[in-house]
Amino acid sequence: MDVRQALAETQQLVDAALDCFLPQVGEVPTALAAAMRHAVSGGKRVRPLLTLQAAEAFGLSARAVLPTACGIEMMHCATLVHDDLPCIDNAELRHGQPSCHVAFDEATAVLAADALIILGFECVARQLETPQIAPAAIVQCVREFAQYTGPRGLIVGEALDIETEHRPCTEAELEFIHLNKTAKLIIFSARAGGILAGAPAEGLAILTDYAEALGLLFQITDDLLDVTSTEAEMGKPVGADAQAGKATYPGLLGLAAAQTRAEEVAARAMAAARQLPDADTWVSLAQFIVTRQK
Amino acid sequence: MDVRQALAETQQLVDAALDCFLPQVGEVPTALAAAMRHAVSGGKRVRPLLTLQAAEAFGLSARAVLPTACGIEMMHCATLVHDDLPCIDNAELRHGQPSCHVAFDEATAVLAADALIILGFECVARQLETPQIAPAAIVQCVREFAQYTGPRGLIVGEALDIETEHRPCTEAELEFIHLNKTAKLIIFSARAGGILAGAPAEGLAILTDYAEALGLLFQITDDLLDVTSTEAEMGKPVGADAQAGKATYPGLLGLAAAQTRAEEVAARAMAAARQLPDADTWVSLAQFIVTRQK
Repeated sequence: MDVRQALAETQQLVDAALDCFLPQVGEVPTALAAAMRHAVSGGKRVRPLLTLQAAEAFGLSARAVLPTACGIEMMHCATLVHDDLPCIDNAELRHGQPSCHVAFDEATAVLAADALIILGFECVARQLETPQIAPAAIVQCVREFAQYTGPRGLIVGEALDIETEHRPCTEAELEFIHLNKTAKLIIFSARAGGILAGAPAEGLAILTDYAEALGLLFQITDDLLDVTSTEAEMGKPVGADAQAGKATYPGLLGLAAAQTRAEEVAARAMAAARQLPDADTWVSLAQFIVTRQK
Repeated sequence: MDVRQALAETQQLVDAALDCFLPQVGEVPTALAAAMRHAVSGGKRVRPLLTLQAAEAFGLSARAVLPTACGIEMMHCATLVHDDLPCIDNAELRHGQPSCHVAFDEATAVLAADALIILGFECVARQLETPQIAPAAIVQCVREFAQYTGPRGLIVGEALDIETEHRPCTEAELEFIHLNKTAKLIIFSARAGGILAGAPAEGLAILTDYAEALGLLFQITDDLLDVTSTEAEMGKPVGADAQAGKATYPGLLGLAAAQTRAEEVAARAMAAARQLPDADTWVSLAQFIVTRQK
């Protein structure tokens, strides 16, 4: 699989579907719709690609799970909007554009992200209109969406990330942060496609192993890129993690050990990939994450 | 029905269930769980009461829908936490206690509310464990939960409420704000019990009429109480709406016209109440909202 082409195709599909699901600017008498659209613009759509791919691997068409893929992207973007707020990371740039609270204002950014989280769940529930998908599978998908993102998932990872900014962070804490803040939504992105396609338990277990390794790999390479790349390549300021006192693998273990760690996790992802249907697709995606420049 | 007693019983049921569903303090290595528990403490549990009552009216036990009732209360409390933030209402008191961002900090308050929104959806999805409830009804419930609270529901009401703070607000805009910001979650609270109990379409329509009137009544009487009561009675500063430049019925129409408006809406609620199973229960609840002091 050519990952860049797959991402470009996913981006087209997802962006068209997002345009349908999001409120139109002017539909409601506030800046809310415009802020939501600003927040979801410019992403690489890696998470939706995982959902579409997992559905196809287990016998459902990619298009059938587009609502869920969009819901996952909305959740991802919503958490970035709240992360960028002055009281959290105070980041003024995202995807090379002004952050949501800079383009609008803080109040609108808080509410736009809330609206994206909620609409994300609505998108999953819209799968009720897809006759091939069993209602019980949709409920399971909603439940896991919440479990992987809520107070025992993404959000708790963010919370610990903030708390460890101004004190030493242990390696165990850093792993907890990366697993929850980054890997869990990536795990769910893959599982969601499998669940909706009716994948057997062992299939879901391999998807989970693969996506957990991919998620950790994604975060470690992101930490490494923050140290080694330029602002133009990243679309956001670099060296920001160190400046903010954020714990990172390069910061905690040193650059060489962090690179070794990335290689170990990449090997785990490859081993799981080879057990999945359409193995080369999953292998290509992991290779893409390792070698990406931005 | 004695509404005070019903609320006390609901509070006991809901608080015990919330304690099970919320992460324990110390379960996760952050202040997140404590902030979530702080955020849900002290409410009157009017919305959960509606859910339990609607389920019973249509033949399901109140206990069967407790997870959904808790999910609705979590959503309600989450929106209050974000509303109280310095960038929105900048309110330091809630239910007679320091607001979440005062008791913890802004970053923790932002994330605790996000976690409550997400866990709210998880609670609804947990109804998959209730054998009397059809999975398709649960998906419908998730979908409506999002529709009544998201960018075409509660959140858009909040967004317009903020935008009209510093400019004149029309009566149509004020109605849009009250319908969305307050009434929609109250409508969903009633509908959720009906949907999970398998109520017929006409039953759901009457529940909707009733709860819409109740929600508007709740907001108008809240506006009136903000003008006429004391801080000790309300558990939060009074006169705050006028100070913040917030549009209210008394502010826009005058006190007498706002009181007339409350009476009209109360009559609508009563008319719908009399068409519902367990009519006197619904009538008592509307009377309670009209005559409440806090």
